[in-house]
Amino acid sequence: MRTEIASLGEFGLIDHLTKGIELKNESSKYGIGDDAAVLEYPTNKEVLVSTDLLMEGVHFDLTYVPLKHLGYKAAVVNFSDIYAMNGTPKQITVSLALSKRFSVEDMDELYAGIRLACQQYGVDIVGGDTTSSLTGLAISITCIGEGDKEKIVYRYGAKDTDLICVTGDLGAAYMGLQLLEREKNIFKGEQEVQPDFTGKEYLLERQLKPEARKDIIQKLADANIVPTSMMDISDGLSSELMHICTQSKTGCRVYEEHIPIDYQTAVMAEEFNMNLTTCAMNGGEDYELLFTVPIADHAKISEMEGVKLIGHITKPDLGCALITRDGQEFELKAQGWNPLQEKEV
Amino acid sequence: MRTEIASLGEFGLIDHLTKGIELKNESSKYGIGDDAAVLEYPTNKEVLVSTDLLMEGVHFDLTYVPLKHLGYKAAVVNFSDIYAMNGTPKQITVSLALSKRFSVEDMDELYAGIRLACQQYGVDIVGGDTTSSLTGLAISITCIGEGDKEKIVYRYGAKDTDLICVTGDLGAAYMGLQLLEREKNIFKGEQEVQPDFTGKEYLLERQLKPEARKDIIQKLADANIVPTSMMDISDGLSSELMHICTQSKTGCRVYEEHIPIDYQTAVMAEEFNMNLTTCAMNGGEDYELLFTVPIADHAKISEMEGVKLIGHITKPDLGCALITRDGQEFELKAQGWNPLQEKEV
Repeated sequence: MRTEIASLGEFGLIDHLTKGIELKNESSKYGIGDDAAVLEYPTNKEVLVSTDLLMEGVHFDLTYVPLKHLGYKAAVVNFSDIYAMNGTPKQITVSLALSKRFSVEDMDELYAGIRLACQQYGVDIVGGDTTSSLTGLAISITCIGEGDKEKIVYRYGAKDTDLICVTGDLGAAYMGLQLLEREKNIFKGEQEVQPDFTGKEYLLERQLKPEARKDIIQKLADANIVPTSMMDISDGLSSELMHICTQSKTGCRVYEEHIPIDYQTAVMAEEFNMNLTTCAMNGGEDYELLFTVPIADHAKISEMEGVKLIGHITKPDLGCALITRDGQEFELKAQGWNPLQEKEV
Repeated sequence: MRTEIASLGEFGLIDHLTKGIELKNESSKYGIGDDAAVLEYPTNKEVLVSTDLLMEGVHFDLTYVPLKHLGYKAAVVNFSDIYAMNGTPKQITVSLALSKRFSVEDMDELYAGIRLACQQYGVDIVGGDTTSSLTGLAISITCIGEGDKEKIVYRYGAKDTDLICVTGDLGAAYMGLQLLEREKNIFKGEQEVQPDFTGKEYLLERQLKPEARKDIIQKLADANIVPTSMMDISDGLSSELMHICTQSKTGCRVYEEHIPIDYQTAVMAEEFNMNLTTCAMNGGEDYELLFTVPIADHAKISEMEGVKLIGHITKPDLGCALITRDGQEFELKAQGWNPLQEKEV
């Protein structure tokens, strides 16, 4: 079944998509339906704002990304930015531009994904814009959240001797993308043949349905740890480490042997004949957290599940380097020490 | 001179465009350069959020819209949404998606317009996203502002007997668009011939460089008037009146003879053989304010410069109607009482 968007019109489509949306958070005073949303944040909180613009053909490929997953991911990557400030996402606005190719049912799918993500993370949809596009789909999401005034974590606070931590594992989302691209190329036009993803489910999930590390932010709070610097890993560990060190005016040493990598990622890199560490350092789209803590927190952080110590911050003149398993030092470059070929992920 | 965007890269382009941006507002605590911007609003204020997504070919045509004007307008229309809540815009985030057709110099122009608008209206640029697009330019702006808790004005508060007011004049932006479209078609391919806009400068200005009615919000505050309902006129007076009446559960009567129309708009409608009132009622993109006040404010509002009384709110069962000069009643329709052919403006 296909209902044309023109049959509803702009206002009809907005009404249809936002039907039944309720505001759950106390800070959401008024949502969709006026010139602006109205929020009320308590005095002891600061307001965090992050925004993202996703373009079809650049950030996502609808030949293998289901619209519901796309909606989920588009929302979650914005939540991730708020967690990366040690904050909590509370509201989003969703703007969509769509070409005639898309039906009302397509938009229902996309919105179902966005609404599911909001439900999982306790975020309200408070506004947005729906408009047409001459080509393809564009999604712009702005996320608003809150953080305790004294506990917001910036990229610039890392200090010499601080420990460098990452959550989860790295490189799997990138491997998932490689896998999807390969299968797309192999099976192009041959509709009878189905791609075989057996044993590679984790990679697909990491690429298609990433999660933001709300759990880690909670654990850090429970353990009374405020990182000295933090950001989420969207462009790859190497690039993000450079951001933290540049903004903190420090150097760093990270150890290849400590970079957390999943078994499926390793198998896939082998299959693709790719350097596994390069994939983990530069892959991007992991949406894990990279953060630093004072050395005094060593004991507490070591026993925290889902967090791995991968190195330490140094004085700036030592530069930023990866120490390989055989003890060699490779300087990190802005795009990673051994950059993958240019990619648009 | 043309500098390719690829020569700077994403981070380089962001650095280049945001160089020298300073935060002027007390509520802007941290701007560009981290995972999220950090804002701090005082307790007695509510936070207002509005967002807009503009797509090339749908919302703007670069054959006749200079990039600097486009940037200015993209920012101002968002400010207008915040004023329409009786608030003050304080911050924006700017996300851009651009195809290879655009150079660094093009983006400088666009950003110069955005920065000029921010300077004029006292708004800080606190974040954004810059990415690539396969086709054309997409601009997504989110505006954050503040309003006094007790003085925020919604669309739903109009009451029977309230007076209906509009600011400025209507239909000129739409006429400006018609003019630009006509000249584009006439001169397509004939590079030697220049379009003649003499005597029509006001129409072009209204289309290409609209302003938000900050001045009126100030005047209302000075006169101690809090409208019972308000919105800005972006889709046309007729459509906006319907929104206010639907949300307020009222009807309305507006009088054709009181609709404010500029002389140039009238001349142009004559030239195009268009019904002038239809243009004024349905034109769109005026970014004037439509608001209602209690009848007790009649004296105060009558003497306010730049504000025109055009009718009054009624009980819901009377419906929404325009009274023509010869005393006939025309029911307002969702898209206006005599809709213009479908347009994408």
